[in-house]
Amino acid sequence: MPLPHHVRLVEVGPRDGLQNEKQPISVADKVRLVDDLSAAGLSYVEVGSFVSPKWVPQMAGSAEVFAGIQQKPGVTYAALAPNLKGFEAALEAGVKEVAVFAAASEAFSQKNINCSIKESLERFVPVMDATREHGIRVRGYVSCVLGCPYQGEVDVQQVAAVAAELDAMGCYEVSLGDTIGVGTAGATRAMFETVGARVPRERLAGHFHDTYGQALANIYASLLEGIAVFDSSVAGLGGCPYAKGATGNVATEDVLYLLNGLGIHTGIDLDALIAAGQRICAVLGKENGSRVARARLAKA
Amino acid sequence: MPLPHHVRLVEVGPRDGLQNEKQPISVADKVRLVDDLSAAGLSYVEVGSFVSPKWVPQMAGSAEVFAGIQQKPGVTYAALAPNLKGFEAALEAGVKEVAVFAAASEAFSQKNINCSIKESLERFVPVMDATREHGIRVRGYVSCVLGCPYQGEVDVQQVAAVAAELDAMGCYEVSLGDTIGVGTAGATRAMFETVGARVPRERLAGHFHDTYGQALANIYASLLEGIAVFDSSVAGLGGCPYAKGATGNVATEDVLYLLNGLGIHTGIDLDALIAAGQRICAVLGKENGSRVARARLAKA
Repeated sequence: MPLPHHVRLVEVGPRDGLQNEKQPISVADKVRLVDDLSAAGLSYVEVGSFVSPKWVPQMAGSAEVFAGIQQKPGVTYAALAPNLKGFEAALEAGVKEVAVFAAASEAFSQKNINCSIKESLERFVPVMDATREHGIRVRGYVSCVLGCPYQGEVDVQQVAAVAAELDAMGCYEVSLGDTIGVGTAGATRAMFETVGARVPRERLAGHFHDTYGQALANIYASLLEGIAVFDSSVAGLGGCPYAKGATGNVATEDVLYLLNGLGIHTGIDLDALIAAGQRICAVLGKENGSRVARARLAKA
Repeated sequence: MPLPHHVRLVEVGPRDGLQNEKQPISVADKVRLVDDLSAAGLSYVEVGSFVSPKWVPQMAGSAEVFAGIQQKPGVTYAALAPNLKGFEAALEAGVKEVAVFAAASEAFSQKNINCSIKESLERFVPVMDATREHGIRVRGYVSCVLGCPYQGEVDVQQVAAVAAELDAMGCYEVSLGDTIGVGTAGATRAMFETVGARVPRERLAGHFHDTYGQALANIYASLLEGIAVFDSSVAGLGGCPYAKGATGNVATEDVLYLLNGLGIHTGIDLDALIAAGQRICAVLGKENGSRVARARLAKA
């Protein structure tokens, strides 16, 4: 299969990233981050999450962030809306696209959202109905597609079943996440082959964590399978909640460097992206998790 | 091309790695490192370098290291011997295999070894003659195969020419090094295709640096090109001399994790390797550069 000519990067730093950073940051800093990212050329930014701030204090103020950002034409600004209440709040904040998430691992679903995979999918039904009614697009996430922190191995047929279910429910795209970064290139290809037999590959995305350093190899493997949408987090924001001190989300800068090298178009400016990452790392007081950013800054 | 069933990892930590760490360490610590690595199942360890300690103080005592290690049957213990004087010292120390190095970049050759590529190859002639006479095998390195810190772009035909020259001179294997880690998967494949047209792929090895996070993607790309020998450095020892604070040699642990995931045999025990890496990092007082090691230790 030839490599795709164009890849869409879904920037998850402001949501998936910041949600997993220890301290919450101000609405103003979040607004600046989102605006920096769209200015760098990202066409899709996951801005926030409409969940209880009691459970996820880092995501408090998502409505204010949506109100504060400069919405650029052609850019999708999305939010996580795990239930009807969250969706209604997102709608009120003017959100045009939402995301829902399920797990491919039964143990992870129970530990993370306190219900079975089947129950979690059932809970999405009223959300999906409401989104259809309001003409809001929905993206689906499946976590633990290559391994689970609680049960270990995850059956790839189970991944395919959950992805197919989200697809059938009306998600226009399903992002397959290696939540703990344990997968390697062969498993990645096999996973996309199996899932791709049930959901067309143009409706699948890859979401890789760099915990074991495998993310870019897995993304290259995915490209070879015809996958053309990848989630990533500027400066590698987020870390790994399952292994303190370890790397989490793959850094957008590092993915972009790979894609640039392969001659694949994204519309993103690497220098502007690195600057955005450096700025948010300064706010958080943490080292930049992007190797490309570190190499560039070391040379400068 | 099917993936290779077996891969040989050439452990360069005690030489290429330690040579690029700031402070020299004791002979006893080097001996322990080499013995730890062979005990972990590495079948090839580059132990030291026979160069002037005035230029490379980190490599002082290489003869004593050779005298101190427990030589395991079936393991190759090699040393760098850039000239006849170095080779004679290596021979005296009982070394059975040596390595020579050239650059694919004219600018790098001038800056690094003060002579043209052509002159550097000419200097190897008496070394190659002497190795033949003593039945010593020689491995060749080519640096800057995907980019140069001084001249930028490097012509892949030039890489092929230098590799073919080393092959013709009698090197049984030529290791192609992305010295500054700038290459990506497509360039890696193109490079092996071009060089592979002049030197059989079973006599080529890949040597990748992770400065831009690309090393494992490049190794996966190389495996797809039929390359089955890779250089790596335990705990990512060495850093990047061309970008302070940036990552250098790819960590052996991370490569092994990829190969294990692909079902490719190496004979190396990951846990023992991680322990060896942790021990030398403690000696150096530095953070472990292997993501796999960090993830494993964070979980433990």
